[in-house]
Amino acid sequence: MPSIYCALVHHPVLDRRGEEVTSAVTNVDVHDIARSARTYGLDGYFVVAPVEAQRRVVQRILDHWSSGPGAQRLPSRRDALALCRPVESLAQVAECIWNQHGSKPYFWATTARSEGVQSPIGVARRRIAHAKRPQCILFGTGHGLAPSVFDLVEGVLPSIQPGKYNHLSVRAAAAILFDRLFAQD
Amino acid sequence: MPSIYCALVHHPVLDRRGEEVTSAVTNVDVHDIARSARTYGLDGYFVVAPVEAQRRVVQRILDHWSSGPGAQRLPSRRDALALCRPVESLAQVAECIWNQHGSKPYFWATTARSEGVQSPIGVARRRIAHAKRPQCILFGTGHGLAPSVFDLVEGVLPSIQPGKYNHLSVRAAAAILFDRLFAQD
Repeated sequence: MPSIYCALVHHPVLDRRGEEVTSAVTNVDVHDIARSARTYGLDGYFVVAPVEAQRRVVQRILDHWSSGPGAQRLPSRRDALALCRPVESLAQVAECIWNQHGSKPYFWATTARSEGVQSPIGVARRRIAHAKRPQCILFGTGHGLAPSVFDLVEGVLPSIQPGKYNHLSVRAAAAILFDRLFAQD
Repeated sequence: MPSIYCALVHHPVLDRRGEEVTSAVTNVDVHDIARSARTYGLDGYFVVAPVEAQRRVVQRILDHWSSGPGAQRLPSRRDALALCRPVESLAQVAECIWNQHGSKPYFWATTARSEGVQSPIGVARRRIAHAKRPQCILFGTGHGLAPSVFDLVEGVLPSIQPGKYNHLSVRAAAAILFDRLFAQD
């Protein structure tokens, strides 16, 4: 198995009108996706937020749970949040992974819509398991990753329930995709 | 497929010391689990909270999104939250389902631990798909359902990643179990 990362993208994402925006960081996204990433053995979780004040919010959450009062009260949360790192852009995600592994990450986009050329989940699972390069799965906040992100990625994961109500929270979508890709049989 | 319900239990659940407590209702639990339930075609989502003030909090959330400002702004959320109903006890869950279907629900417990006689997921999936009675899956808040709940249920779903870090959020755990049980192949 290669090294596996995920990134929660706050820019560029769409709002409900389809405009490209920067969304706000949400405490529960930081916690829930870190806990799911830890459960499925991921190597890191980037929170991509271009606004510096927003990255400071993330860092305050991490400090509270890594060395502040939270670390004593709930050590399991510290273990999950140790995966999390606020960064300013997808370029910085690529740079961090390059610095760690000396190799460019293979980016996967996720979407609730039918956009992109989506690999069936079994194909994606095998491609990831046998990949040589580190892998990074991108999740969009708001109403999803902006089209410009799809130009950057090399693969697109299949939407979760195509043709159905497609308004899962990003926290639920990340948990389901980790399970589909990384659960032990 | 029979009718399928889920219930998020705030009492009786355990705290981190293993004491039986009543936990507080959380806004994001109401939203996320309703959205996941709607995605996988569930028939209803009960929020079990014995404290009346807590049920009023849930009702205020539902009102905001069903007929208040939220209904206009985000109709998809209204569709999800229409599944949700605050009730005071598991007995009331059973009564609501009885009134709807004239049949006692088959309750499934969920757990992150190894407790109970857990059905393998494929077995649970087939048993649910072929059941005659309505089914209801119980999720515990806090540190999980109290042992007394396991005495009430007829089945226990398998824990999600046995032997691994088992501190998923209840929102993530519900999403993963709905996917394992109800996703179309």
